[in-house]
Amino acid sequence: MKILVAGGDGFCGWPTALYLSNQGHDVAILDSQARRTWDDELKSNSLTPIESLENRVAIWKKITGKNIDIYKGDLTSYDFLREVMKQTKPEAFVHFAEQRSAPYSMIDREHAVFTQTNNVVGTLNVIYAIREMAPDCHLIKLGTMGEYGQPNIDIEEGYLRVEHNGREDVLPYPKQPGSMYHLSKVHDSHNLMFACKTWGLRVTDLNQGIVYGLHTEETMMDPGLVNRLDYDAVFGTALNRFLIQAAIGHDLTVYGSGKQTRAFLNIADTVRCIQIAAEEPADQGEFRVFNQFTEDFSVLDLAERVQNIAKEEGLQAEIGRLNNPRVEKEDHYYKAINTNLIDLGLEPHLLTDDVLRNILKTVIKHKDRVIKENVMPQITW
Amino acid sequence: MKILVAGGDGFCGWPTALYLSNQGHDVAILDSQARRTWDDELKSNSLTPIESLENRVAIWKKITGKNIDIYKGDLTSYDFLREVMKQTKPEAFVHFAEQRSAPYSMIDREHAVFTQTNNVVGTLNVIYAIREMAPDCHLIKLGTMGEYGQPNIDIEEGYLRVEHNGREDVLPYPKQPGSMYHLSKVHDSHNLMFACKTWGLRVTDLNQGIVYGLHTEETMMDPGLVNRLDYDAVFGTALNRFLIQAAIGHDLTVYGSGKQTRAFLNIADTVRCIQIAAEEPADQGEFRVFNQFTEDFSVLDLAERVQNIAKEEGLQAEIGRLNNPRVEKEDHYYKAINTNLIDLGLEPHLLTDDVLRNILKTVIKHKDRVIKENVMPQITW
Repeated sequence: MKILVAGGDGFCGWPTALYLSNQGHDVAILDSQARRTWDDELKSNSLTPIESLENRVAIWKKITGKNIDIYKGDLTSYDFLREVMKQTKPEAFVHFAEQRSAPYSMIDREHAVFTQTNNVVGTLNVIYAIREMAPDCHLIKLGTMGEYGQPNIDIEEGYLRVEHNGREDVLPYPKQPGSMYHLSKVHDSHNLMFACKTWGLRVTDLNQGIVYGLHTEETMMDPGLVNRLDYDAVFGTALNRFLIQAAIGHDLTVYGSGKQTRAFLNIADTVRCIQIAAEEPADQGEFRVFNQFTEDFSVLDLAERVQNIAKEEGLQAEIGRLNNPRVEKEDHYYKAINTNLIDLGLEPHLLTDDVLRNILKTVIKHKDRVIKENVMPQITW
Repeated sequence: MKILVAGGDGFCGWPTALYLSNQGHDVAILDSQARRTWDDELKSNSLTPIESLENRVAIWKKITGKNIDIYKGDLTSYDFLREVMKQTKPEAFVHFAEQRSAPYSMIDREHAVFTQTNNVVGTLNVIYAIREMAPDCHLIKLGTMGEYGQPNIDIEEGYLRVEHNGREDVLPYPKQPGSMYHLSKVHDSHNLMFACKTWGLRVTDLNQGIVYGLHTEETMMDPGLVNRLDYDAVFGTALNRFLIQAAIGHDLTVYGSGKQTRAFLNIADTVRCIQIAAEEPADQGEFRVFNQFTEDFSVLDLAERVQNIAKEEGLQAEIGRLNNPRVEKEDHYYKAINTNLIDLGLEPHLLTDDVLRNILKTVIKHKDRVIKENVMPQITW
């Protein structure tokens, strides 16, 4: 299958592109390199030293013989996007190409406006390009579990059957996002649902949990294929961040009580979920929503697990309780449904001590690259 | 009370600014004049000849002695908005300043992207400006009943109590908007709810029905104060459009079966609702939602009522059944709640035959100004 991976140079996009390529799909990458420029802006870096996108695909070609074409440009440029669609004629369009950090979106007004326009306009352009150039193309769009917020009822997959005053309907699941970034994904979801209903587009919206891990089978084939690993307070996600903090002897930065519960998955499951969605596409006109995660943990649970594993490796990791830099519920009900992908064959990689130990070992290897100033949260809301 | 009316040169904004001024409030108008440029773009016009904004406020001052300051500029320019906030220090910010036509937003990709960025960025800027410069200022934001779509259950005012698997919560009412424009208002609502929860802003979101009518007591004080009246297939709304079609002997353009039911209100009630919201503000941190309409009608009902009134005036108006240019449900359940504003003292102007007759008479007076090419719908989705 011809698959275009937008954002294919990023933390999720790169291993996904390799995995799909390795599964025999004909993969092309569209990427603006924006993620790398945000490292420059924030004076931050990937813990792992990553090659240029050109080198990455050249190494992949050398090792596997498989070709991945690169299209460098931005989804917010419609002319560029049309040209890519014309040249690639994708059957599936995997869309990772958004600004994906909540703290980045909350830096100030400019970053909020940038995040919302970048994400919403990019996705609008994708909708229009598919409609204009490849109406059968299946759009696989990355959303986030954070779109739902923390309701006091079970979180269903995209829709909720409601009985009210003696009548019944199945309605879009109400959204209560907690940052300008999460809001942008909610806006996307509404736009996509409209495009399916109105123009018969086929879309799978993957409400992804927080991704941890680093390696996949493909990224381990060569050091030059290594995935990026974010640890700073802006782009680093909880578990990876804790592991790096343990490695450098920094307190694990738990925000508030740490009782906040979130949905998680291993990067190895992210790539498999995209494959499942691509190979079992949504129907024409269907706006299909999968909750893409495998387990849920409280933030404090994760910190304690990291602390224990670190101790086994001779590292003394303290749990530091920070005033929560965010306005969010700390004590809340959390139960989210994730059966759709399981039913389609996902076999979760669970968070075992071995998994934690393996990430920690990679992290220790690169720990001298950590820029310590970036570890503590500076952005509050 | 110091009240800033953004979009105060438009169909709803102008009579609102005059009404609030006449009620003794200290009113300023912020307006980009964008609505007038869209007339130029579409080669359309207001049925009523309207004065420049400068002349309008000069006439108002001459008649009433009341001053209305003008700030010409666009909400998407944050520097401009900050300067206006600094000079006016508003206690209430009434926000009409959005692109408000569904067909305009559906012309093509560019108009969709424009509508969403213009509306979403403008409103984001307002949120940030209030937070930065006037955190006590009450934002009164115009939404639309179209945000809800046509669910098969009663439409509540912004929130829905849900029981699910034995648990309960009050959640944002699920939204199913039917155009790129309506989507932009849904995006705004989510952004505003977040700003209230996170920063303690006070916001009233007015989900307004389709407005009909033209005059208010204030706009009738002088011909130079007359309100604009839109009849074209892009900006004209159902009832006003039918009246103008009757006046010029054009078939009344009912889309599809005409069984689509919508919520309506008289422009005279719009201005009063804004006053009520301003004088009974939301609490700090409260995202308050009112459904701002007084009656609901099917489109065919309205056409038949216009036909009857036209006949009394010696006009032969035929009801023309057009293929529906929009993807929308025609046969659907529709019951929306609107008690919040009534409870605060709104006394609705209902759609009587007298009301219809009065609008029709104004319309007949100006019917030579109609540009006939603009009456039939050209934009489909």
